[in-house]
Amino acid sequence: MSNEVIDTILNHRSIRKFKDVALTEKQIETIVSSAQMASTSSYIQAYTIIGVKNKETKARLAELAGNQSYVEKNGHFFVFCADLHRHEIAGQMEKVDVGPSLESTEKFMVAIVDTTLAAQNATLAAESMGLGICYIGGIRNEIEEVSNLLKLPEYVIPLFGLAVGHPDGDTEKKPRLPMANVYHEEVYEQDNAKFVEQLQNYNETISNYYNRRTGGKRTDRWTEQMANMLKTPRRMQINEFLKKKGFMRS
Amino acid sequence: MSNEVIDTILNHRSIRKFKDVALTEKQIETIVSSAQMASTSSYIQAYTIIGVKNKETKARLAELAGNQSYVEKNGHFFVFCADLHRHEIAGQMEKVDVGPSLESTEKFMVAIVDTTLAAQNATLAAESMGLGICYIGGIRNEIEEVSNLLKLPEYVIPLFGLAVGHPDGDTEKKPRLPMANVYHEEVYEQDNAKFVEQLQNYNETISNYYNRRTGGKRTDRWTEQMANMLKTPRRMQINEFLKKKGFMRS
Repeated sequence: MSNEVIDTILNHRSIRKFKDVALTEKQIETIVSSAQMASTSSYIQAYTIIGVKNKETKARLAELAGNQSYVEKNGHFFVFCADLHRHEIAGQMEKVDVGPSLESTEKFMVAIVDTTLAAQNATLAAESMGLGICYIGGIRNEIEEVSNLLKLPEYVIPLFGLAVGHPDGDTEKKPRLPMANVYHEEVYEQDNAKFVEQLQNYNETISNYYNRRTGGKRTDRWTEQMANMLKTPRRMQINEFLKKKGFMRS
Repeated sequence: MSNEVIDTILNHRSIRKFKDVALTEKQIETIVSSAQMASTSSYIQAYTIIGVKNKETKARLAELAGNQSYVEKNGHFFVFCADLHRHEIAGQMEKVDVGPSLESTEKFMVAIVDTTLAAQNATLAAESMGLGICYIGGIRNEIEEVSNLLKLPEYVIPLFGLAVGHPDGDTEKKPRLPMANVYHEEVYEQDNAKFVEQLQNYNETISNYYNRRTGGKRTDRWTEQMANMLKTPRRMQINEFLKKKGFMRS
């Protein structure tokens, strides 16, 4: 099955090099309106999007995100924030104590989900206009500094950035896990040997993919990549930071 | 600006009544492939999608989700699970201890974000084919029972359901928060009075919207709705359940 939406979705690749062309106000508005029309849990709309144009702020964000040049050099940089501050204000306006709810793990999850649904709409709207995107989880490296830089109040945290712009060059699509490994019917796959075999087959796919792309310089397996990434726990300060901001206290 | 993707995004409304027509295998496959092409943090692909067709399982899920008929009656029911089980297996295959990483709050957030990006792609693919969708956060009402029903292993939790099917009747689009309240430039809006005024204006929009839709039976403000929803903390067992499943231990 094919249509413009499915083609846009299936054609996705992350873009890490952008031309020096700023998004127009109209493009920004279309991206934000698209984000806002995503589904939202009980109408809570638990996010705020900060658009960053200031060169110094962008340079500082790039530095905090681990020196990723495309955080600084792009058409526009959005920071998607999980946000329950608005709901604290709503509680004050209605004279209702909403604190214990806002501080629950459930509402933290709701805020992350709402924010991410909105972001993926933003992404597809941007890609449909011929723009490229890259999500920037790296802003959580120094989550507290990023939060201070953007002057986020209590009950608001920066979840990820989204660099958007006119692609400078193309990149290749990366093959995903075998569908049978990701999509199970009725219950979670109970056959562990089958599960492992699927990952081994995927390892071969990925190893060949890197081999081909790098002319033999890289041949890493997917499980190898994952094990390398996961052997050292990272961003361990986040739990404490979240609690400080009012989240996930119970 | 307008194209098929943006039109699909802006035309979204949740569908809670479906015709009794099952999705075809091809439709399911297109939806899952679309989900899989979403961006993923460091290639981690931290989700599994369970497709439920069995009538008894669907009836039980509907019951657990608070008797929502559309969990039982739809064209297909997907359960999106945040999943780091695959990465535990990867660690075993590579003889690397990945436990401390998997148990971090950071990786819990990564898994929720990855799962949700995939789900929103699934949603838009479905909507582009003329299908309707409704996200079901209600499966977290009894998260442990849902998890057991779907036989989810350690490091896997059911995040939300997605009911998909052929819409039976149309519903109206719900107006979102004013863009200026959601999209800020450079830093978070520092003018509290302005922020409150935006919410008051939105309250009027929403009150009029309900008034018009219900012929005067409902006129609630958005802040009123939020305060009512948030006055009682819900799903407070989730924090403990997450830890039991291996998540968010540090």
